[in-house]
Amino acid sequence: MSEINKNYLNLAQNYLFPTITKKVGEFKADNPDEEIISLGIGDVTRPLPKACISALHKAVDEMGDASSFRGYGPEQGYDFLINDIIKNDYEASGIKILPEEIFVSDGAKCDVGNVQEIFAKSCRVAISDPVYPVYLDTNIMAGREISKILCKEENNFNPAVPDFKADIIYLCSPNNPTGTVMTREDLKNWVNYARINKSVIIFDSAYKEYVRDSSLPRSIYEIEGSKEVAIEVRSFSKTAGFTGLRCAYMVVPLELKGTACAKDAISFNTLWRRRHTTKFNGVSYIVQRAAQAVFSSEGKQEIKELINYYMQNAKIITEGLQAAGFTVFGGVNAPYIWLKLPAGIKSFDFFDLLLRQARVVGTPGSGFGDGGEGYFRLTAFGSMENTLKAMERIRGLKL
Amino acid sequence: MSEINKNYLNLAQNYLFPTITKKVGEFKADNPDEEIISLGIGDVTRPLPKACISALHKAVDEMGDASSFRGYGPEQGYDFLINDIIKNDYEASGIKILPEEIFVSDGAKCDVGNVQEIFAKSCRVAISDPVYPVYLDTNIMAGREISKILCKEENNFNPAVPDFKADIIYLCSPNNPTGTVMTREDLKNWVNYARINKSVIIFDSAYKEYVRDSSLPRSIYEIEGSKEVAIEVRSFSKTAGFTGLRCAYMVVPLELKGTACAKDAISFNTLWRRRHTTKFNGVSYIVQRAAQAVFSSEGKQEIKELINYYMQNAKIITEGLQAAGFTVFGGVNAPYIWLKLPAGIKSFDFFDLLLRQARVVGTPGSGFGDGGEGYFRLTAFGSMENTLKAMERIRGLKL
Repeated sequence: MSEINKNYLNLAQNYLFPTITKKVGEFKADNPDEEIISLGIGDVTRPLPKACISALHKAVDEMGDASSFRGYGPEQGYDFLINDIIKNDYEASGIKILPEEIFVSDGAKCDVGNVQEIFAKSCRVAISDPVYPVYLDTNIMAGREISKILCKEENNFNPAVPDFKADIIYLCSPNNPTGTVMTREDLKNWVNYARINKSVIIFDSAYKEYVRDSSLPRSIYEIEGSKEVAIEVRSFSKTAGFTGLRCAYMVVPLELKGTACAKDAISFNTLWRRRHTTKFNGVSYIVQRAAQAVFSSEGKQEIKELINYYMQNAKIITEGLQAAGFTVFGGVNAPYIWLKLPAGIKSFDFFDLLLRQARVVGTPGSGFGDGGEGYFRLTAFGSMENTLKAMERIRGLKL
Repeated sequence: MSEINKNYLNLAQNYLFPTITKKVGEFKADNPDEEIISLGIGDVTRPLPKACISALHKAVDEMGDASSFRGYGPEQGYDFLINDIIKNDYEASGIKILPEEIFVSDGAKCDVGNVQEIFAKSCRVAISDPVYPVYLDTNIMAGREISKILCKEENNFNPAVPDFKADIIYLCSPNNPTGTVMTREDLKNWVNYARINKSVIIFDSAYKEYVRDSSLPRSIYEIEGSKEVAIEVRSFSKTAGFTGLRCAYMVVPLELKGTACAKDAISFNTLWRRRHTTKFNGVSYIVQRAAQAVFSSEGKQEIKELINYYMQNAKIITEGLQAAGFTVFGGVNAPYIWLKLPAGIKSFDFFDLLLRQARVVGTPGSGFGDGGEGYFRLTAFGSMENTLKAMERIRGLKL
């Protein structure tokens, strides 16, 4: 038989969310009449903005007419979208990004999962613990050495610069799962580290729209010198409710260089372009039109309301948990609330207890790594009605 | 600086189609008033079927309403689509495929590009020459040893079973670029080879809808014993004009097993499921609804007309070229016409000549490998008006 990629045997048996889905399914089967509220998986619940719906209908009609039909588009994305991304997400904050540095994709998960392909297998990877599992699993699949940086409460769960040399570092801010945000100073330290160690930072800012404190950075490119060391990943999923529509983008600056056998400087932008055009065929045209509508004046207003809605939920959860006697982190500039469990309670036990007693689904911290043990993640993406109801139920929890 | 994936340095400098785009762009700049007809890149030109347009509008409206909004879907695809695929594309031909064997994706290019990840780097790959470049390039990126099987005219350009042991074999039928179709006997030989050599066949049948001769196989699973040795890739791109919409699927049978260090049998289905759920977040919900509509009775009728339209073009091209004195292959059960150039004419020279003299864009055979030198690909995907005009112009060609 053909040899398989043996690195897959090193993966933990089950991906976090399928395990949870299974547990919830079993509970539902045993308790068919119970109403379960999910504050677990980070999926949005509000409908798409009207501006996006109009843009979709218009684009669909174009696809039904021979004179306006579009077949294959540019793999990197249509100029109309790339230009709007640059203008609104970068130029407006004084950051200069070139069109050829933007790669539109069908998801931040795909981008952070695929980007490692352009690096050597020998690269040493550093990730936070707790961490979004995709950074970890995709590098295990590739057979790389992975070092974890334990994120501690006293450091606001931000990863500290390590005392070893990492070649690739994954940073996520606002953070999934902890909901905390790196300060400008934190990011400066990392950019400085990367410049000294010749490392590349993969900066996942899928939740950047939730940063409302203007002193906190939304983009790593706000830090001087970062274009030489950082790739940035962003998404329309949590900004505009595109989790079921699929659109994201990745920035690979022209200044970012790697090397082969420590000889020539080779552009990661060129490598990624080759990867992107060879293994990907572009995002659905109609979806790119919907993404463009996010940047219209109507779209911007709707996005603002959408974020306000979810952030109101975050406040309800934070205050509800605090009133119930819990210590909480995150939830201020991020849609995630990171709940500290009372000493001695394991996060998967709390998951079962919360499901059984309150019919509320959350995510066990240990699912994000050993560093998440003793913590629990709740998301602000539910409906407000359900969020209020969930807090009501949690108030009556018996630990 | 971080070490790059050095395998990328082994890639040919330019991907075929960008090179062509550049040449055409230069010609256009020099001859702004000339009307150029493209029978080059295999992109469709007819609008989406009405059944798909209606399904898209309906799905878009669902996404605009909180009560019917859909966020993350199952990464493998929605059951409504998977069940329709099984019923129409397999059960109707007497082939039994299980829902868990189907993985809906955003493109056949992505699937044939990504599937190699679940195999060991040590696997020896066999591809045809000429070949769709993605099979080759994605395995170069992974650093695998690649053996080419020269496809000859006397063998109808079908790859002959080799005298060496290959672990992974890519077969494409109806073939891109040659437009020829493997017979049931050809496929039986390959399945037999794979069973003896414990190889895995990646069977790309993206153009299966163009097979109108019922004695020719549309699926490798028509061959007995093939589920133990074959993965099948299919697409809505060329069937229903989804090149700009993006939907495809891959079948990974439960019977298909690999091994680690020649020990246990490991399911490729499990490996691919892990890969698909870790690095991919599902196809856009609205696009899956459009794909489902392809299987409605209205959709089926429209698809039939669409294929008839393109196959009429194929006939126009075939007869036009034959009248102009050329020898042609393909074009009968496939949308590609493989033109044999007169002795001594190189395919990239013919490209330039055709562009300059006839303002017609085609694809040089050598772009698909050395085995394609001396041949030239034309596609049936243009409008009928342009196809007729192109043949008119080619008739006056001076070689």
